[in-house]
Amino acid sequence: MKRVGDFTYELEKKCYITGKSVLVGEKEKTGTFKKYFCDSVTDDKMGEKTFEKGERRMLFEIDKMALKDAGLKSSDVSLYLGGDLMNQIVTSNFVAEKLQIPFVGIYSACSTLTASLGVGAMLIESGGFENILCSTISHFSSAERQYRYPLEFGNQRQCYSQWTVTAGGAFVLSTNKSNIIITKICFGKVQDYGVIDIANMGAAMAPAAYDTLKNFFTDTNTEPKDYDMIVSGDLGKLGSDILRDMLLKDGFDLGQNYMDCGHSIYLFEEESYQGGSGAGCSASVVSAYILEKVKQGVFKKVLVVATGALMSTVTNQQGDSIPCVAHLVQIEKV
Amino acid sequence: MKRVGDFTYELEKKCYITGKSVLVGEKEKTGTFKKYFCDSVTDDKMGEKTFEKGERRMLFEIDKMALKDAGLKSSDVSLYLGGDLMNQIVTSNFVAEKLQIPFVGIYSACSTLTASLGVGAMLIESGGFENILCSTISHFSSAERQYRYPLEFGNQRQCYSQWTVTAGGAFVLSTNKSNIIITKICFGKVQDYGVIDIANMGAAMAPAAYDTLKNFFTDTNTEPKDYDMIVSGDLGKLGSDILRDMLLKDGFDLGQNYMDCGHSIYLFEEESYQGGSGAGCSASVVSAYILEKVKQGVFKKVLVVATGALMSTVTNQQGDSIPCVAHLVQIEKV
Repeated sequence: MKRVGDFTYELEKKCYITGKSVLVGEKEKTGTFKKYFCDSVTDDKMGEKTFEKGERRMLFEIDKMALKDAGLKSSDVSLYLGGDLMNQIVTSNFVAEKLQIPFVGIYSACSTLTASLGVGAMLIESGGFENILCSTISHFSSAERQYRYPLEFGNQRQCYSQWTVTAGGAFVLSTNKSNIIITKICFGKVQDYGVIDIANMGAAMAPAAYDTLKNFFTDTNTEPKDYDMIVSGDLGKLGSDILRDMLLKDGFDLGQNYMDCGHSIYLFEEESYQGGSGAGCSASVVSAYILEKVKQGVFKKVLVVATGALMSTVTNQQGDSIPCVAHLVQIEKV
Repeated sequence: MKRVGDFTYELEKKCYITGKSVLVGEKEKTGTFKKYFCDSVTDDKMGEKTFEKGERRMLFEIDKMALKDAGLKSSDVSLYLGGDLMNQIVTSNFVAEKLQIPFVGIYSACSTLTASLGVGAMLIESGGFENILCSTISHFSSAERQYRYPLEFGNQRQCYSQWTVTAGGAFVLSTNKSNIIITKICFGKVQDYGVIDIANMGAAMAPAAYDTLKNFFTDTNTEPKDYDMIVSGDLGKLGSDILRDMLLKDGFDLGQNYMDCGHSIYLFEEESYQGGSGAGCSASVVSAYILEKVKQGVFKKVLVVATGALMSTVTNQQGDSIPCVAHLVQIEKV
């Protein structure tokens, strides 16, 4: 692996994506990507007693589906990387116990997808690993009651709020060949522009996506039109508008080849305000839609830049603003 | 890097530890390692209004001290890896914002030390990084009120409980030379033997340390007496006794060259029950005592196996048992 510029890393060995999976909830299944979300659940407790246990069962299914897609058993995989939005990433911890694959937990909020894929691809590059499983999930009901209000409370939402998606995705990184590879990685620096309103995640996270994309374009001496698609995680409509504006001021026009998973995942009539959010938002859209298009050759070179808001309920209650991060991976068709 | 056996990785390039730091609270400063804990704080709020903000300031100081020890500025460091015990690892997130080093958060509870060092060393091996900063911290007051009871409640403790240390440590991994290197890594599989009592962390975590050590000894065809010191994280007295028993049944006698940071950190008269716990427990003892002894050549080859309990208050309230993990790094003098 070699460093390009200040913040970007170019893989020299090939890190293939040989397996992927996605499982979404009912609301996500009826949205924009219904044709691509083949597997969905109608019971978001998955037959369990609580939403948290349901989320856990859902992630276990997602991980098993990705292993199956790659034609692997869990004993063929040497490392499991991932996390989720629950305190202490317990969803992933408990699934790791079931899988019995050596596990390192990543906490990067809604940017867990690209944090895990980035670290995983670099570990493949280091030479000791053959297969690494990366996964993440978010769950509306468990996230809502942990971060915001009890569901029964029925609070009113701000017009600039987003809707945590019930969805997850898993990916198998491998030295075995496929026609999708990860070629470049750019980890983000944490940005804090002073937003303190936890309902306004898009505004808080946009500067992180801006910083990472600006660093990446500068390091690689490229611009947005050099990519078939640039995908941000879950900025929502407002956040992705802010990102566009910020980049444009530096002369980087995101143009037509840009989409935000959060802004895109729900249809207007689903009343999800600025769109979806959550670690599973980018994971599900990238797994089901983006990688499918890469596989088909519709997109040959894609940048995925997932963003994460790194606050907690306690930091919010103590008046802190919201630090955010964005990690980028470049995915290509071979 | 090459794989040895099923779970162990041997670094082929050299990953040096070029900087380290430690900062402890008042109780830790008066304990066993008082001679080694050069820097301590008397105000565990560090002049801030809350324990959480104090913890954050403490970690920032720790990170700056490690950079200074390595003779680096934060702009010389390409990646910051780490985490802590706070929900959403907010202590590390906020410090990452201040440092402005690209940051990937690791959540591995009290095994964050070895999870971060392990991932960091492998990333150094992958070729793109020159300097990586790894750090972790725990804080009695912020952890106690997040995980257990309000401090003012003054609850009685079980005889098998442990005391979360107020301490943290940071480490600079580098391609630059020093006389301490990381040579082998073994990531753990999550173990759950059904312990549901969150006061009994030692019993919950011992099977994870057992599994990782057993895998490592088997993979490398070595036994405990081949190492000058084997250091577990924060099993406490009870947990380390359980670990000894479990390994002995498989023919691995930990013998005299074994210590547990949690069991050792406090003096008997400090009334800390089974000893210390927390992510900062192993980080501080390894940074201040173990690495100092490695530097001096007293210990030439050391295994550090930090353990983490991966539950949350919610999983505990929902009746789940405690999944635990242990990650191992082998550290040597060159």
